[in-house]
Amino acid sequence: MSAAGISQHSITPGDVLSWIAVDWGTSNLRAWAMGKAAEILATAESPLGMNAIAGDPKLSFEGVLISLIDEWLGAGNTPVPVVICGMAGAKQGWLEAPYCEVPAKPSDLASGAVKPNVSDPRITVSILPGLCQRNDADVMRGEETQLVGFIARHPDFSGWVCLPGTHSKWAHVSNGTITAFRTYMSGEVFGLLSQNSILRHSVGDDWDDAAFDDAVRAAKAQPTAFLHTLFTVRAGALVAKDGANVPPGAAVLSGTVIGAEIADVLSRLTPGEDIALIGAGKLASLYQAALAVHNHQATPQDGAVITLAGLGRAYDVVTGN
Amino acid sequence: MSAAGISQHSITPGDVLSWIAVDWGTSNLRAWAMGKAAEILATAESPLGMNAIAGDPKLSFEGVLISLIDEWLGAGNTPVPVVICGMAGAKQGWLEAPYCEVPAKPSDLASGAVKPNVSDPRITVSILPGLCQRNDADVMRGEETQLVGFIARHPDFSGWVCLPGTHSKWAHVSNGTITAFRTYMSGEVFGLLSQNSILRHSVGDDWDDAAFDDAVRAAKAQPTAFLHTLFTVRAGALVAKDGANVPPGAAVLSGTVIGAEIADVLSRLTPGEDIALIGAGKLASLYQAALAVHNHQATPQDGAVITLAGLGRAYDVVTGN
Repeated sequence: MSAAGISQHSITPGDVLSWIAVDWGTSNLRAWAMGKAAEILATAESPLGMNAIAGDPKLSFEGVLISLIDEWLGAGNTPVPVVICGMAGAKQGWLEAPYCEVPAKPSDLASGAVKPNVSDPRITVSILPGLCQRNDADVMRGEETQLVGFIARHPDFSGWVCLPGTHSKWAHVSNGTITAFRTYMSGEVFGLLSQNSILRHSVGDDWDDAAFDDAVRAAKAQPTAFLHTLFTVRAGALVAKDGANVPPGAAVLSGTVIGAEIADVLSRLTPGEDIALIGAGKLASLYQAALAVHNHQATPQDGAVITLAGLGRAYDVVTGN
Repeated sequence: MSAAGISQHSITPGDVLSWIAVDWGTSNLRAWAMGKAAEILATAESPLGMNAIAGDPKLSFEGVLISLIDEWLGAGNTPVPVVICGMAGAKQGWLEAPYCEVPAKPSDLASGAVKPNVSDPRITVSILPGLCQRNDADVMRGEETQLVGFIARHPDFSGWVCLPGTHSKWAHVSNGTITAFRTYMSGEVFGLLSQNSILRHSVGDDWDDAAFDDAVRAAKAQPTAFLHTLFTVRAGALVAKDGANVPPGAAVLSGTVIGAEIADVLSRLTPGEDIALIGAGKLASLYQAALAVHNHQATPQDGAVITLAGLGRAYDVVTGN
């Protein structure tokens, strides 16, 4: 462990580094030292995401990367391939990797990788492109690599894959192809409403699973009424009879927002199609609970594992394995 | 005109004051000096709404009211009835006027008026109640008096009445009765998204009516997709081909928000029912344009005139006229 949120682990002596996988997000950076048989030899993490680097003229993408993985590279006789997904390929990133357009196969994404010039001879760098959709305009950068990893692990899946987040992404996958996707601003909208709107007076630390489920059910019953249903978070308390139990606002608001998102996606589900959920922690659990209200059972799959599977698939294509 | 945003006009000598109508909102206060034949003799306005008074221990509701209308009252041999609608009747107001519950007739609302004790012998005060709905929890304070005024002027109306605002209200009116209503947080949500969300980078001063209409049309086509469609405000610019015309974000966001609200209300419209629109200025024009996209022609009716008609109806009931 070194300074300022940076965490680095060493490769066990004797293990042989084959390539390095990197997920470079807006606000953090994760790297994995990979062995020949796709085994993880070591991991490293830093808070120097794209925004931090873009905002500090003293930082460069190559400099930040090298300082994170320097110890893994050692003397380095042969250049080690580094495969990067995420915001490093954005316009404000290291080198722009133009969006790949849906429908897209994993090999389309890997073929769109760009290779920035690097001054350190110990590495070669490939930055993977994001994904865009022109009809019903949408974009993603980073999540497409999770989708590639998901497809590698579930080649026969047909349906919608959910990646919860500040901006959650739902992708339609069929025949090993990403055919369409939809971003939902649910997380950001929840944050604004709970902290900056009139509803902040009704949202506290209390939580109740049944109130969350009820709000998801209400969103299911009135799937077009989001801007109205929101106000019941406040009005519910104002009209409650004295002594009546008022459900916790945080649970009601969360169920209202996630419920609106899920009701919309599920209206697009074709019979016979599945739902998959990638993620961890409280947020993934809430999506799992909301899907259960709609009678869909989806167990969250670990996002880091899926990302790494996607980077591995890209590594194979990029290096011609 | 006197200090700090207060505007006062005198009654013409010879005119006889009959009663005083007051609309006391969260952030302002308006009063009308009324003659025997419902004619307006003078008007006065102040920024001392409920919030300003609740936040300043040196201010009282009676004191603020008297300083605004003092000149109208003169020596005052007979007490002048003052009829007030709005936040003066809230829990944090002058005296709480408990909500009247839907379905409600204008006479139900007037009968629910409360009469605070006043120390100035020149006036008697009646504060009208707000309206609440227990099933699909909702509340309003002030707008119910506009609805009473609307019903007085359109006794045979059957359908939904729209009152645009930060929290816009839609009320279902039939047989001279308010049967149900719905608050939409559209104005507040638009403000938060355009100023505090990632969409702020896409929202500027440019405007385009056709882009607004297109966004309303998109909301009509995908009425459950609000949390997704929002993101197209940003993604639309990111995926546009070089040189392509990117529609102004403010118009797209506004059409997306108002379009979602209107698509939901119109899904509740029974064949043969009408739409009415109360309000003025840019916001009312946007609602008018959005309704036109749905083939509903609604000309905005002046809100102050309608409020005054509602207060007049309440005055008749309160004073037994």
